Amino acid sequence: MHDDQPQPLTAFALNCSLKASTSDTPSSTEKMIDDLFRALKPHGVSGSAERVIDHPVKPGVMSDMGRDDGWPSLRARIIEADIFILATPIWLGHPSSPAQRVLERLDAFLGEADDRQRMPGLGKVALVAVVGNEDGAHAVHAACFQALSDCGFSIPGNGGLYWVGEAMQSRNYVDLDDIPEPVAQSMTLAASNTAHLARRLKARPYPGVVAQEGKI
Amino acid sequence: MHDDQPQPLTAFALNCSLKASTSDTPSSTEKMIDDLFRALKPHGVSGSAERVIDHPVKPGVMSDMGRDDGWPSLRARIIEADIFILATPIWLGHPSSPAQRVLERLDAFLGEADDRQRMPGLGKVALVAVVGNEDGAHAVHAACFQALSDCGFSIPGNGGLYWVGEAMQSRNYVDLDDIPEPVAQSMTLAASNTAHLARRLKARPYPGVVAQEGKI
Amino acid sequence: MHDDQPQPLTAFALNCSLKASTSDTPSSTEKMIDDLFRALKPHGVSGSAERVIDHPVKPGVMSDMGRDDGWPSLRARIIEADIFILATPIWLGHPSSPAQRVLERLDAFLGEADDRQRMPGLGKVALVAVVGNEDGAHAVHAACFQALSDCGFSIPGNGGLYWVGEAMQSRNYVDLDDIPEPVAQSMTLAASNTAHLARRLKARPYPGVVAQEGKI
Amino acid sequence: MHDDQPQPLTAFALNCSLKASTSDTPSSTEKMIDDLFRALKPHGVSGSAERVIDHPVKPGVMSDMGRDDGWPSLRARIIEADIFILATPIWLGHPSSPAQRVLERLDAFLGEADDRQRMPGLGKVALVAVVGNEDGAHAVHAACFQALSDCGFSIPGNGGLYWVGEAMQSRNYVDLDDIPEPVAQSMTLAASNTAHLARRLKARPYPGVVAQEGKI
Repeated sequence: MHDDQPQPLTAFALNCSLKASTSDTPSSTEKMIDDLFRALKPHGVSGSAERVIDHPVKPGVMSDMGRDDGWPSLRARIIEADIFILATPIWLGHPSSPAQRVLERLDAFLGEADDRQRMPGLGKVALVAVVGNEDGAHAVHAACFQALSDCGFSIPGNGGLYWVGEAMQSRNYVDLDDIPEPVAQSMTLAASNTAHLARRLKARPYPGVVAQEGKI
Repeated sequence: MHDDQPQPLTAFALNCSLKASTSDTPSSTEKMIDDLFRALKPHGVSGSAERVIDHPVKPGVMSDMGRDDGWPSLRARIIEADIFILATPIWLGHPSSPAQRVLERLDAFLGEADDRQRMPGLGKVALVAVVGNEDGAHAVHAACFQALSDCGFSIPGNGGLYWVGEAMQSRNYVDLDDIPEPVAQSMTLAASNTAHLARRLKARPYPGVVAQEGKI
Repeated sequence: MHDDQPQPLTAFALNCSLKASTSDTPSSTEKMIDDLFRALKPHGVSGSAERVIDHPVKPGVMSDMGRDDGWPSLRARIIEADIFILATPIWLGHPSSPAQRVLERLDAFLGEADDRQRMPGLGKVALVAVVGNEDGAHAVHAACFQALSDCGFSIPGNGGLYWVGEAMQSRNYVDLDDIPEPVAQSMTLAASNTAHLARRLKARPYPGVVAQEGKI
Repeated sequence: MHDDQPQPLTAFALNCSLKASTSDTPSSTEKMIDDLFRALKPHGVSGSAERVIDHPVKPGVMSDMGRDDGWPSLRARIIEADIFILATPIWLGHPSSPAQRVLERLDAFLGEADDRQRMPGLGKVALVAVVGNEDGAHAVHAACFQALSDCGFSIPGNGGLYWVGEAMQSRNYVDLDDIPEPVAQSMTLAASNTAHLARRLKARPYPGVVAQEGKI
């Protein structure tokens, strides 16, 4: 169900593939982002994406690591959007190294709270989309949800998307003829939940707290 | 900042300590729940708690595992409340076995969605509160956030509470003279965020999706 | 390749299924243990197993939690064996609650080191065998390897066994007509590695350290 | 206890700090590697280390990702050594992005087994050394042990080293006046266990398996 005249929302996705977009090999992560954008569209959400590896994101834990750092422009896109989609392949059962680098750069949010202790991520909704040829999706959701909540993002119910194949097999999400039915359903539900939550938090933002409220 | 005339909200906490409440040893997990309830109170949230180990919660993944199962009454309390607090000590770096049992019983939610695919947890807000004498809190947040999101719960920004001591030390949260300042602050912020999110979702529940909306 | 006249070794497996052995439903975890025992046999390893849930293993972190505690007899079997197999289904992406309880009881090993700081697990080799209908095996390996290494167990190369199906599917390991080829291969390799490592450590045990060696 | 005339062993450590060695800020990870080398020395182990971020290690999952890839020379050092030390800071509760990149590059080992299914890592012993100002060490051990076992490395009993401070504090390992006693003890024990295990596996390598042995 969509809101009657839903306020338009924006989603920004970071594709944390190990392959640059100049690679000849198609990215399963990109396909999942595209599928998710299609699921979000009827809810008034327009999406855009960048591949992290296309940008020279420097190692570090500050929002700007100096000359030639590719992060500040990606960070700006996260800040502008209502919804942040962290999309990553699974490697060795973990979020990819570009995904972990993104989290490290988001860590700067912990030192950038406003005078009501609201980090830049607070009020934004995060989805985590994961693909792999086998196993690891829930562990990647876990690692990312925890880090994103730490940085202020809100996680909607059923906010983890994924596809993985059977143990020790090598088929990829891009190799599938169709989106498997339960995967499509989970995307549809996640899209609805995400748009709803983002709209609620946009209409009435988290108020935050002031220092003297801190007495327990 | 509190809403002007905030609608009252309820929070239900499960204390996943390994010790029954008849134990002579004080529960650090219980203290953290109490501290959190104090932080939630100014936001119009009244809380109650149960210790899982006091109840004969049977192993299994259904909502009712038959005669003498202690889960159905706890499950009813979760369903009635607006906010669910999963509070657990860290053992071997993981959520305690009672916490994992709670998650296993919540797994039944996946088969209990309504005709708009909304699981019983959808619309409820979850907090995860963790104590240990050393290390492991973020890993426990990760494991619990992922499982709770799978069951439909929403996670507010900064929804992970914790205290742990220095590596390989044995001091407990109950042994501290005062709540350390950053811990108190994190509770204050989490309480504000949680009440706000729960109120938004109560005023306008997740709409869910109907089957034919599933086409991507 | 087997040693020429290999010294006999023993393996003890704990099946951490949520179902008691009186259940009518077959246990995928049990089947994997049986398959693994078959792979270990040519290496001179004889195996036996118990289902944790058949025993009244009390919550706690001591080796004996008093009257009617089912753990001491299981603990004795671990101590007697050269190889310990922790076999668990995946629930919500995690080791089952009986598996976590086993780890909590093994935690007592940290306080039971001898005068050379050798915990009761030191010198024993651990395998972790995991089944699920979808996703989670590597995360369970991770959680268990870390806890078992903490308790002194050694992990052989390729010491993680598993089968899981495709994302969001419901087929179980017991439902398969045959052991999938890569799974069978991984068992064969793990069995060889485990027997080899256990034999090396039995022939020449870890020497441990004395207190005054502790100066770095 | 050291072997009488212990065969010399070599350890190679990768420091997965986010900071290059040209940084003015001292690396806690480097200090822990140095402390560990000191603990290993009496066991006849000589160590050397590289900082991953000093080398242009390309993203990917092959052993050589082409021109200007910094990985092949680091990989060669791992192959030459008997002991591999993966040393990483904790960021957002996870192994650092350089650590995850190392694991991704080690993933190539899965396709490089010899005709007895032995991966290049098989027979080598791995330690995981972790530092952080607060929380996360066990989760990092877990993630790394699982990935390293997958690549063939053996994990000794008590193979996880770490120091972290109290929750939400900012002190670092380099800021400590002395190595805390339990940390020093754990290093001493880990060093003894590691040297012992590496020596056993060097004297009698894992035999591996041939294809026809795979029948279970």
